[in-house]
Amino acid sequence: MKRPLDDLKIFAGSSNPKLAAEVCRLLGVPLGEARLSRFSSGETYVSIDESVRGSDVYVFQSFSHPVNDHFVELLVMIDALKRSSAGMINVILPYYGYARQEKQDQPREPITAKLLADLLTTAGAERVLTMDLHAPAIQGFFDIPVDHMTALDLIADHLRTKDLSNAIIVSPDAGRAKTAERLATYLDLPVALMNKRRPKHNEAEITHVIGDVKHKIPIIIEDMIDTGGTLVKVIEGLVQNGARPEGILCATHAVFSGPARERLSHPAIREVVVTDTLPIQRQGELANLIVLSAAPLFAEAIDRIHHNRSISSLTPESSKQ
Amino acid sequence: MKRPLDDLKIFAGSSNPKLAAEVCRLLGVPLGEARLSRFSSGETYVSIDESVRGSDVYVFQSFSHPVNDHFVELLVMIDALKRSSAGMINVILPYYGYARQEKQDQPREPITAKLLADLLTTAGAERVLTMDLHAPAIQGFFDIPVDHMTALDLIADHLRTKDLSNAIIVSPDAGRAKTAERLATYLDLPVALMNKRRPKHNEAEITHVIGDVKHKIPIIIEDMIDTGGTLVKVIEGLVQNGARPEGILCATHAVFSGPARERLSHPAIREVVVTDTLPIQRQGELANLIVLSAAPLFAEAIDRIHHNRSISSLTPESSKQ
Amino acid sequence: MKRPLDDLKIFAGSSNPKLAAEVCRLLGVPLGEARLSRFSSGETYVSIDESVRGSDVYVFQSFSHPVNDHFVELLVMIDALKRSSAGMINVILPYYGYARQEKQDQPREPITAKLLADLLTTAGAERVLTMDLHAPAIQGFFDIPVDHMTALDLIADHLRTKDLSNAIIVSPDAGRAKTAERLATYLDLPVALMNKRRPKHNEAEITHVIGDVKHKIPIIIEDMIDTGGTLVKVIEGLVQNGARPEGILCATHAVFSGPARERLSHPAIREVVVTDTLPIQRQGELANLIVLSAAPLFAEAIDRIHHNRSISSLTPESSKQ
Amino acid sequence: MKRPLDDLKIFAGSSNPKLAAEVCRLLGVPLGEARLSRFSSGETYVSIDESVRGSDVYVFQSFSHPVNDHFVELLVMIDALKRSSAGMINVILPYYGYARQEKQDQPREPITAKLLADLLTTAGAERVLTMDLHAPAIQGFFDIPVDHMTALDLIADHLRTKDLSNAIIVSPDAGRAKTAERLATYLDLPVALMNKRRPKHNEAEITHVIGDVKHKIPIIIEDMIDTGGTLVKVIEGLVQNGARPEGILCATHAVFSGPARERLSHPAIREVVVTDTLPIQRQGELANLIVLSAAPLFAEAIDRIHHNRSISSLTPESSKQ
Amino acid sequence: MKRPLDDLKIFAGSSNPKLAAEVCRLLGVPLGEARLSRFSSGETYVSIDESVRGSDVYVFQSFSHPVNDHFVELLVMIDALKRSSAGMINVILPYYGYARQEKQDQPREPITAKLLADLLTTAGAERVLTMDLHAPAIQGFFDIPVDHMTALDLIADHLRTKDLSNAIIVSPDAGRAKTAERLATYLDLPVALMNKRRPKHNEAEITHVIGDVKHKIPIIIEDMIDTGGTLVKVIEGLVQNGARPEGILCATHAVFSGPARERLSHPAIREVVVTDTLPIQRQGELANLIVLSAAPLFAEAIDRIHHNRSISSLTPESSKQ
Amino acid sequence: MKRPLDDLKIFAGSSNPKLAAEVCRLLGVPLGEARLSRFSSGETYVSIDESVRGSDVYVFQSFSHPVNDHFVELLVMIDALKRSSAGMINVILPYYGYARQEKQDQPREPITAKLLADLLTTAGAERVLTMDLHAPAIQGFFDIPVDHMTALDLIADHLRTKDLSNAIIVSPDAGRAKTAERLATYLDLPVALMNKRRPKHNEAEITHVIGDVKHKIPIIIEDMIDTGGTLVKVIEGLVQNGARPEGILCATHAVFSGPARERLSHPAIREVVVTDTLPIQRQGELANLIVLSAAPLFAEAIDRIHHNRSISSLTPESSKQ
Repeated sequence: MKRPLDDLKIFAGSSNPKLAAEVCRLLGVPLGEARLSRFSSGETYVSIDESVRGSDVYVFQSFSHPVNDHFVELLVMIDALKRSSAGMINVILPYYGYARQEKQDQPREPITAKLLADLLTTAGAERVLTMDLHAPAIQGFFDIPVDHMTALDLIADHLRTKDLSNAIIVSPDAGRAKTAERLATYLDLPVALMNKRRPKHNEAEITHVIGDVKHKIPIIIEDMIDTGGTLVKVIEGLVQNGARPEGILCATHAVFSGPARERLSHPAIREVVVTDTLPIQRQGELANLIVLSAAPLFAEAIDRIHHNRSISSLTPESSKQ
Repeated sequence: MKRPLDDLKIFAGSSNPKLAAEVCRLLGVPLGEARLSRFSSGETYVSIDESVRGSDVYVFQSFSHPVNDHFVELLVMIDALKRSSAGMINVILPYYGYARQEKQDQPREPITAKLLADLLTTAGAERVLTMDLHAPAIQGFFDIPVDHMTALDLIADHLRTKDLSNAIIVSPDAGRAKTAERLATYLDLPVALMNKRRPKHNEAEITHVIGDVKHKIPIIIEDMIDTGGTLVKVIEGLVQNGARPEGILCATHAVFSGPARERLSHPAIREVVVTDTLPIQRQGELANLIVLSAAPLFAEAIDRIHHNRSISSLTPESSKQ
Repeated sequence: MKRPLDDLKIFAGSSNPKLAAEVCRLLGVPLGEARLSRFSSGETYVSIDESVRGSDVYVFQSFSHPVNDHFVELLVMIDALKRSSAGMINVILPYYGYARQEKQDQPREPITAKLLADLLTTAGAERVLTMDLHAPAIQGFFDIPVDHMTALDLIADHLRTKDLSNAIIVSPDAGRAKTAERLATYLDLPVALMNKRRPKHNEAEITHVIGDVKHKIPIIIEDMIDTGGTLVKVIEGLVQNGARPEGILCATHAVFSGPARERLSHPAIREVVVTDTLPIQRQGELANLIVLSAAPLFAEAIDRIHHNRSISSLTPESSKQ
Repeated sequence: MKRPLDDLKIFAGSSNPKLAAEVCRLLGVPLGEARLSRFSSGETYVSIDESVRGSDVYVFQSFSHPVNDHFVELLVMIDALKRSSAGMINVILPYYGYARQEKQDQPREPITAKLLADLLTTAGAERVLTMDLHAPAIQGFFDIPVDHMTALDLIADHLRTKDLSNAIIVSPDAGRAKTAERLATYLDLPVALMNKRRPKHNEAEITHVIGDVKHKIPIIIEDMIDTGGTLVKVIEGLVQNGARPEGILCATHAVFSGPARERLSHPAIREVVVTDTLPIQRQGELANLIVLSAAPLFAEAIDRIHHNRSISSLTPESSKQ
Repeated sequence: MKRPLDDLKIFAGSSNPKLAAEVCRLLGVPLGEARLSRFSSGETYVSIDESVRGSDVYVFQSFSHPVNDHFVELLVMIDALKRSSAGMINVILPYYGYARQEKQDQPREPITAKLLADLLTTAGAERVLTMDLHAPAIQGFFDIPVDHMTALDLIADHLRTKDLSNAIIVSPDAGRAKTAERLATYLDLPVALMNKRRPKHNEAEITHVIGDVKHKIPIIIEDMIDTGGTLVKVIEGLVQNGARPEGILCATHAVFSGPARERLSHPAIREVVVTDTLPIQRQGELANLIVLSAAPLFAEAIDRIHHNRSISSLTPESSKQ
Repeated sequence: MKRPLDDLKIFAGSSNPKLAAEVCRLLGVPLGEARLSRFSSGETYVSIDESVRGSDVYVFQSFSHPVNDHFVELLVMIDALKRSSAGMINVILPYYGYARQEKQDQPREPITAKLLADLLTTAGAERVLTMDLHAPAIQGFFDIPVDHMTALDLIADHLRTKDLSNAIIVSPDAGRAKTAERLATYLDLPVALMNKRRPKHNEAEITHVIGDVKHKIPIIIEDMIDTGGTLVKVIEGLVQNGARPEGILCATHAVFSGPARERLSHPAIREVVVTDTLPIQRQGELANLIVLSAAPLFAEAIDRIHHNRSISSLTPESSKQ
């Protein structure tokens, strides 16, 4: 039974209004009316300004800076929607933050990525739509359905517009090896891996390049670019191993914190390819930055979810060959 | 059975370390070791740096600026403590923020004060100790025990050091009437109330003074001072009605946001009396400010809770005559 | 998508069958068939006697006398409906009892109004529709949506049929000030407030009249009339202050317990205006009693909820100017 | 580790204060101070009047008349204790009411015995101590521990004081067969069963006596006596089959509702033996009534539970041979 | 509103694929595609191989041998369906195992039948459809709706095809008395009961026949046949009491464990009538076995549930006269 | 406060009784008495045969073959302990099975490792003690505390008894890189990694050796050995790359399913080092097998947990340098 799109409503938190607006434009649905503000004391205020009774709602929020404010705002929006008798409350988290705190690296640490999942469910979230999680096990932190999408095809499509005859896909660490492999398969390219190890006790950690990168254009694939520190080391290691100083950095999520911008202007980086899951501040300042829009993917996913059609073609799992 | 205090541990979030330190000093207990920091991306990081296995823990956090960061930090601390096999997790909220969003003032608003209660319980809080809640019904938002203390006796003790022969207690609005009455009884003083009303449709709201304040020193009692806007109107209304321009403002919680400091320097305000449930920034700049320490009250409460003795003498409910 | 009303079913507990019947009549929906009885031992027995599989159900129950029997009966009905695969279970509580136990007035009291909210949710309630809660924070006691209606417009409409040229709205205590203000605005009338205070320690509590009531017809607005004790004191205080002995008492909920009837026959009370959220026993005995029917409001709300239309126009929050 | 009894506190609801008082006397523990009252509106009010912080509490309440008031009072007491930071909350239900509604006998009935279990747990009960449940599966309705005791030994001890040379144990229906068998084994007596059946369609139901009761004194064992209707039919059936008109009725719970007293005065009933799990009204009026006190059993159980010793010797399960 | 059957999907665990396939055939619905397998380590693997987004799903699983594998497989299937955004998850348990552990027969036993109910709900089951529960109170172990069907009419229809002029219905123990009575009423036949009792302490347990079975064909009705041990004793007891050695054993669930097949080949058993709620292994080996298909009942129930029509006519409760 | 060990009780499921017995012997605590059996139908039966009232209990169960039977048995044991008023219920899972299903590798798969965590919590587990989880994020699947131990020191200690002058630590895939690094640091040895990749589309996957293994004795570290298939490929790859055919395979968990034993007899494998977290069947048949006992680690952990001392020195997290 085809449902008209007018019984869905899309709301946007203040983290990434541009992405939500673009998704609405693509779907031909107006953005839901809501007031989001802060009191002088710093407390967040939210008011939903149109009826949502019985409507399936989709609430957009990314974990962009300031991350805790955006997270609390999201919880407050969900509470307001739940109390307003909304139908199914779908939370769209283009970028799921705190994802690197998904296990204890030391005793008596929190597992914040799990805590957030529990808090979202307590507030009233009933389904989550997210993209390129830092660790896939985070999906299991939820007891509600999590639709996990990928921007890898989007990035591959962009790369296909280039001359890739001399390129090689590089995974910057063991955690991205599978993603690198998948991208390499899409583009019919070889793979190299960066590997950190400490040959003997008391010797310094060395980053090895595994695979032959000589005279190759390295395409480095990551889930997110945060401060850019590791990536700069990777690009320098590649160049030292003979790679061409024309690296292409690809990542879904552009966190870009601290000195990221300066680092990404590194002369051996020809291009930085990211998506708009996070808002890009002062975009013009970074000359080599390409921002692909994930909005069509989110619009497609919402349309499919709303009409109960499978979205598995949009997920990393089903992109397998 | 008297338990030694060394099987309790006190931890402090970053909102009000001074208060927690003072409470520890009074109890003769060292502050629990924990690392609290922020990543470049703005994400909160917490690590508990001593064993809490089987120990009853008390975690201090006030909703001071930046309020959402402090709230998320508290949730993350609770998660870390829970996963570290702490015994009973007591959360001490000297000031419970978001308390003015405890009901819907307009359709489709959140009830954030309730949401926060649910989130704290989800994270792992097992008991709450708080002080002078803006609305007493907030206690009912929790299903875990909430010990609700008051600083009123502390404030009364301070006022008793003054010549009160010409003073009158003033409630700035209907919500504080009971508190004003209680303070008046302690000090054997008369009471006046400020009352907002709109005599007829389309006429402006007028603030009336109820009670005779002529030639009296007004002592205004509030639960919190936020931007100070209302209080300045109150003091001016009192002076217009003949009160002496020597008002004493009393409040438990010094939120002091926005232009509060400027407003509180008003010539008709002789003294501003608050407690240290919230940290006071640039305290020296406000010449007429008196900060009473609530630390002895919290220390006493923790000692009683830890030894299973009643704390009802510290609560507003039992201060009744 | 307009849903036919025949996939909703309305059931009535034994507290106020007349109101439910009238709502059904207005909606053109037959009252759902159910047996409600008591065993010789006093145990409540319920059986739903028609299929409710997949139907949205609305269960009416007020907290009328005997209040605990009616509350338990409601829980048992909800259990029966849940086990019978009903769709959304909406609980309609025209009068929410135990509402004055919404906070601790003394140490170690229960917060019964919260307990009831938890019990209703445990039994299976999924949405609550109620009217003129004694304290608006009770809405926050629920994690399910609560639609909170008001009978104030109904009462205002009734008063508009009278000559109000000399009338004044009176709030009997601080808790009703906002309601009084709203009614005054509807009717373009001035406001007065009754204020209890104790000028000095050991002196008796005095009820003051705030505002000029001389030669005025006082219209006193309350949420409920229980034993009527306070209201009689209020009316006498008003008359002592020069008001005309022709008071009009208005309240949504007619609890009328103990000596209420005798007290309401007071010569200075010209009219008592209530609604039928609670059944009125021996209505004829109270000559000055006017009972307005809230049935059209409930019928309208059910129709809107059932068709996913906003009911905010029926709530106290949205009646603001 | 032997714990002193003074860190336990026993509270009594208003259903059976005598039993609780007797248990306290046996344990040498004062009854906990609490106010239990009803407002004019019928609402239940409870206040715990001594500190329970950290103490294990035992709350007595039977489902005696008026059953719903007693049930709600119990829930409210549990809420007050929970909010007062009581330690483990043990609920003692000498008689668990609504136990006959433990399954659906017709479509769309509630399963009230389960609902009550859920409500008690929601309110805050953490362990239940009860006696001779009508159906043992009710124990499984709880997720918290349920200690299930029996009064059968008590009844057997009383019967041993009599000349039983000509007696026979009679089970009044199939549901009591196991209990009858157990009592018969204790007393070394034969067993008879009453059996209802309908030989053919359209013929009336007949109660058969299975076993030879001729010239025997029938001892009928039941879990509860409600209206007494079935038991009178049983005794008459036995006499018609040749039993001596000197029946002894034994039951743990004396509900005694409706015409029970008149029926139990039947000339063929020589003695009615019950316990005091429920209060016996107008005890003197029933000449042949023997009331055994279950207080020593409850005192023993509390003492064992409080000192973490097994109570399995007090349960029906372990009385097996 | 008539919903097309194509928005329901039926999946089958590996316990009884034949029954599920037959139900699908009757409904004209293809069986849902899913992979069910076991790893070399014995771990269960499940993958749902078609979209279930928004579809109401019905998952078939019986507690057949190996029972724990089938139970875990069911939980894993429910988890996969829940995470795949299925609509309402209906679990069809033609035979509910562990049903004899529904109460504690000795101290410190589990109540496994309740535990299973909680585990199913945790995994994500939202409604249960089952047949002829060993104990009806198990329905109350669930907080979700349980539709409880019976195969008694099916068995009665089969028996009606025989010459019953000399037959008698026999209940093999007290627990089946009601079922026997109901079947007797359907077929207009007399009833006999087997009764175990121990006349005196130290004497052996004797099984009595209650009712006159002389020269009668005994029709024994049970909910399940497990090892067959008790039933063989019953048939021998009947023959000793003069019944014809032509017994008909009827049961809904054919567990047939251990030596059941050998025992059921007993010369005094003319026919064994069961249904296919459990798969029958080596059916041909048992010459006197009649297997009735419960598939039409399940198909009818699914059709009614899916279209929100009452199924009470298929339940034991409503079969009452 | 030093607690005597006699208020703890240790119970063992039937998966690995030897390990539990050894832990009890080391702690000087008798193994708790419990009956574990299976009915003819395959249903699991459990009975706890000594009082556990108020005692902290530790229940041992590994996910050994048959894994589902052992898992269900564990749940049933927890249920029995919970209903018997046990104190804290600690579940000791020396080997946590289903750990490789901790994320979706394809759409519509379950996340069984998470499901199990939820089921254990539902049954009543309050803390988990486990060892060398396949994926550390599984710790976050629980909301109860999880103490995560490692056997790495045990394995390192064993290796130190050998001549390691020519050895190299090998990580068989990216997932074990961190563990390999840690072991290498303990033993002051270099590291090599195996890396699977597919250089171009349509070419076969190749396993590369990263690092120089020529003439080295490879020490391969894994968390578990299941069928041994991958490990045999790894050892052959190493030998092809010049490593000495004297490999030492180290793993915490000896699943040893399918053809594992045959494969591990490979001539290039000199030694297989495992622990006894899982029972080793037919241990004598595998000549090169060394089984280290993890019992001292579990005994130490239980002793520390029971006395509220930190166990972080036993965890992988704190072994960091």
